[in-house]
Amino acid sequence: MKQSVGVNRRGEVNKQPHCLGHIQCDIVSVMEAKIEFISAGTVTSPKGFLAGATYAGIKKETEDALDLGILFSKAPCMATALFTTNKIKAAPVILSQKRLRSGRAVAVVVNSGCANACTGEQGLSDAAEMTDLAAAGIGVSAEDILVASTGVIGQRLPMELIRASLKQIVLSTDDSHKLVRAIMTTDTLLKETAVVVRVGENEFIIGGVAKGSGMIHPNLATLLCFLTTDAAVDIGFLKVALQKAADVSFNMISIDGDTSPNDMVLIMANGMAKNGPLSPGSSQAGAFQQALDQVCIYLAKSVARDGEGATKLIEVTIGGALTTAEAKLAARTAVSSPLVKAAVHGNDPNWGRIVAAVGRSGAEVVEAKIDLYLGNICLVRGGCPLSFDKEEVVRVLAGAEVPINLQLNLGTATATAWGCDLSEEYVTINSQYMT
Amino acid sequence: MKQSVGVNRRGEVNKQPHCLGHIQCDIVSVMEAKIEFISAGTVTSPKGFLAGATYAGIKKETEDALDLGILFSKAPCMATALFTTNKIKAAPVILSQKRLRSGRAVAVVVNSGCANACTGEQGLSDAAEMTDLAAAGIGVSAEDILVASTGVIGQRLPMELIRASLKQIVLSTDDSHKLVRAIMTTDTLLKETAVVVRVGENEFIIGGVAKGSGMIHPNLATLLCFLTTDAAVDIGFLKVALQKAADVSFNMISIDGDTSPNDMVLIMANGMAKNGPLSPGSSQAGAFQQALDQVCIYLAKSVARDGEGATKLIEVTIGGALTTAEAKLAARTAVSSPLVKAAVHGNDPNWGRIVAAVGRSGAEVVEAKIDLYLGNICLVRGGCPLSFDKEEVVRVLAGAEVPINLQLNLGTATATAWGCDLSEEYVTINSQYMT
Repeated sequence: MKQSVGVNRRGEVNKQPHCLGHIQCDIVSVMEAKIEFISAGTVTSPKGFLAGATYAGIKKETEDALDLGILFSKAPCMATALFTTNKIKAAPVILSQKRLRSGRAVAVVVNSGCANACTGEQGLSDAAEMTDLAAAGIGVSAEDILVASTGVIGQRLPMELIRASLKQIVLSTDDSHKLVRAIMTTDTLLKETAVVVRVGENEFIIGGVAKGSGMIHPNLATLLCFLTTDAAVDIGFLKVALQKAADVSFNMISIDGDTSPNDMVLIMANGMAKNGPLSPGSSQAGAFQQALDQVCIYLAKSVARDGEGATKLIEVTIGGALTTAEAKLAARTAVSSPLVKAAVHGNDPNWGRIVAAVGRSGAEVVEAKIDLYLGNICLVRGGCPLSFDKEEVVRVLAGAEVPINLQLNLGTATATAWGCDLSEEYVTINSQYMT
Repeated sequence: MKQSVGVNRRGEVNKQPHCLGHIQCDIVSVMEAKIEFISAGTVTSPKGFLAGATYAGIKKETEDALDLGILFSKAPCMATALFTTNKIKAAPVILSQKRLRSGRAVAVVVNSGCANACTGEQGLSDAAEMTDLAAAGIGVSAEDILVASTGVIGQRLPMELIRASLKQIVLSTDDSHKLVRAIMTTDTLLKETAVVVRVGENEFIIGGVAKGSGMIHPNLATLLCFLTTDAAVDIGFLKVALQKAADVSFNMISIDGDTSPNDMVLIMANGMAKNGPLSPGSSQAGAFQQALDQVCIYLAKSVARDGEGATKLIEVTIGGALTTAEAKLAARTAVSSPLVKAAVHGNDPNWGRIVAAVGRSGAEVVEAKIDLYLGNICLVRGGCPLSFDKEEVVRVLAGAEVPINLQLNLGTATATAWGCDLSEEYVTINSQYMT
C-alpha cells in the first residue's frame, strides 16, 4: 500500500497539522519530500533492526501465542521515550527511564501477560534480570538494553519461564511479525506500520509497532509503542519530535479513561540510512517530523479502533476553539464520554450528548454559536437543532468510522481526537480479566 | 426506620465529616441534637410543603408513568440552589438561576422526558410559560416559581401537552409519592427521605427527593434534587450549608463521568417549624448541617446505587492523603474508573486497577506506603501484594455494597466517594436511549 504525503490511508487529504511549535519546517522543502507507507511495514523495516519472539508461558496459551520478544539494532541507537504519568510506575518503566538518561540503547526486551507492576524491589530485580538475560544472549552490555512489560498488575514475573525461553529467541527481519504479536494482550488487531521518506538524495525509513486496547487515555495513550528509524537523528531533536508526534496521536486517543503504570513510547534511531544529519529547520527534519506524526497517528488510530469490545472508530474534530489546548480538551472529552460512545455504538442519533460533553470539557463554549456535523450532515447550526433524515444519520453512525465535527466558532484553533464505541463486550472483557 | 445521629442506615458509625470550614459546630451542643430518619419520609414531610404530579404524555407511557409535577410551600421560602457547571445550560436552569437571585421561592414545576436543553430562545420562552401555567393554577406570582426539566437534549417541550395537563395536578402531602415518580427517567428506585431533628425545645424536619442514574459525576452529581425544610434558616447560612452538604454527597458520586446541562440541587426553607432562627455556630445550625449532610448522602448513595445497569454500590474511602482535596480526587478517580467498575461487576479480584487509578488521580502517591483493603481483607501492605483467599475476596465483591479502603499513609486527610459497577446493561440502556 503506497500513499503520498498529506494523504491518509483512506485516500483523504490528511488534516493533521505537521508544523507545530518552535521547529518550523520549510514548506517548500517539505513539498519536495515524499512519504510513502510501506506494504507490510513494521518495526524492522528500517535498516539494521532485527526482532524475534517466543512463547514462554507467561500468558494463557492460545494458538500462535507469543509473550516474550526482543527488538535489536545492529548499530547503537540514539534513543528516547515517553513514559506513563501514573504515580504508580511499573518496574520496567523505572529501569528503562534510568537507562535512557544516557540517550542511547541497542535493544529492548519485552513480555506480555504480566505487567511487573506493584511488585516492589523484587520487580526491579526481575526487570534487571530480564535485561541481563537478553544481554548475554545478544552479546552486548545490559546497560544498553531497555525493558517493557504489559499484563496483569500486582503479580511477579515468572522468571523461571523467562530464563528458559529468552535464549530460544531468534532475531531476524521479522517477516512473520512475531514482535507485534508478542506484545498483544486483549488486542485483536496487529498494530504496525512503516513509511519511507525521500528528501532529495536522502532516504530513510520510520517503522513502529504498538499494543493497547484497554487502559488507553490521553496523556500517553498507548500501553506500548516501539518506533525505529534508520535516520541519523540528534538526540535533542529526537526528543522534541517524539513529544510532538505523541501530542497529535497517542495523546489524542481514549478508550476508557484509565492509564497504565506501564505506558511507554520508545523511539530508536540507528543512523544506518547514512542520511545527512537531521538538524532542526532543515527540510529533512521537517519531513522526519511529518513522517513520524503519520506513523504515530496510524498506530494511535489502530489502538483506538481496536479498543476493547469496539466495533467502530470515532473521530471527533473540534474547530473554531479559542486555543489549541481548548480544542484538544473538547475533542478528548467528547470522544471519551461513555454516553457519546454508547450512543454511537447503538447508532442512536442522540447528538445532545456530544454538545453536553463539549460543554463540560472546560473549553469556552457559547451555545448559540455551535455548529455540529455528523459526517456531512449538519445537525445543529448556530446552536439551533435542525431537522434531519434519521435514516441518513443512522447510516453514518453505522459506518466503520464515525466522523463528528463540532465548530465552536469562537477562534481558529482545531484538534482531532480518536476513540471507539462502548459495547457490552467491553464490560464482558473487563469484568473477567483475571478470572 | 429510625436512626440516631452519627450512625448510618447500615448501623455503622457515620464516617462523614460534619464540621468543615469556617462554620464550626459546637460538639457538645451537637451531642444534644437528635437526628432520626422518618419512615417513608419525603419532600413533603416538613410542615407546609405539598406536591402533586400527573402524566402529560411527555415521556413514553408505561404503567403508572408520571412526567409533570409541582412542589409547593404554603409559606414563602428562603431558597437557594446549586446548578450544573456545564457550559451548556438548559433553559430551565437559566431561568431558575435568574429567579433565585432574590433568594426566595414558593414552588418548583418540573417535567421529565424532555430536558428543554439546546433549544435556544424558544426553550427559554417555554420554560417561562411552564412557570406561568403553574402560577395561574396555584395563584401566586410566576416570579416566585422555579422550573426544572430532565430527559432528552435538543428537543422542544411539547407545550400543548403541558398546557392541557398542568391544571390537573392536585397538591397534597404526597403520600403516594407522586413527585419523586414524576422526575424519574431511567431511574429504577425511588430516591426520597426525610429526617427529624430535635435540639432542645426545637424540632424541625429536612426532606428530599432526587433523580438521576446516568450523566452522574463529581461537580454536581445529580440531575435533580429538591430539598425542603420547615426550619427557619437565614439565606446566607442556607447557601453555605447546601454547598457543604453537596461537597460530601452529590460531588462525591460518579456513574459515568458525564454531567448534564440540567443538574440542579434546590433547597427551600419555609420556617413553619417556628424554631428559633438558625445562626451560624449555634447548636441548631450544627445539627441542621449534620442532618442536611445525612439527607444528601442518603440521596447521593441512592443515585449511585441506581446507576444505569448497576448491580451494586461501590464505596471508596481514601485515607492518609496529604490534603482533603487530594483524598477526594483519589476517591473519585478510583470510583469512576471503568476498569475498576467492570472488575467489581465481574467479582474479579483485579485490585491492581484500584492502585493504578489512584496513581493517575493527581494525588500524591508513594507506592511503597500503600495499604489496600477490600472490606476487612488486606490485599496490599506497604505497597507489597499479600496472598489472599480468593473465595473470600469474591464474596466481598459479590455483595450489594463493596467497600474499598486505600490508605496512602502520607498525611491525615480522608474522603469517601460512591459509585456503581459497570455492566453490559449500562451499554444496552445508553445505546438505545432515543431509538
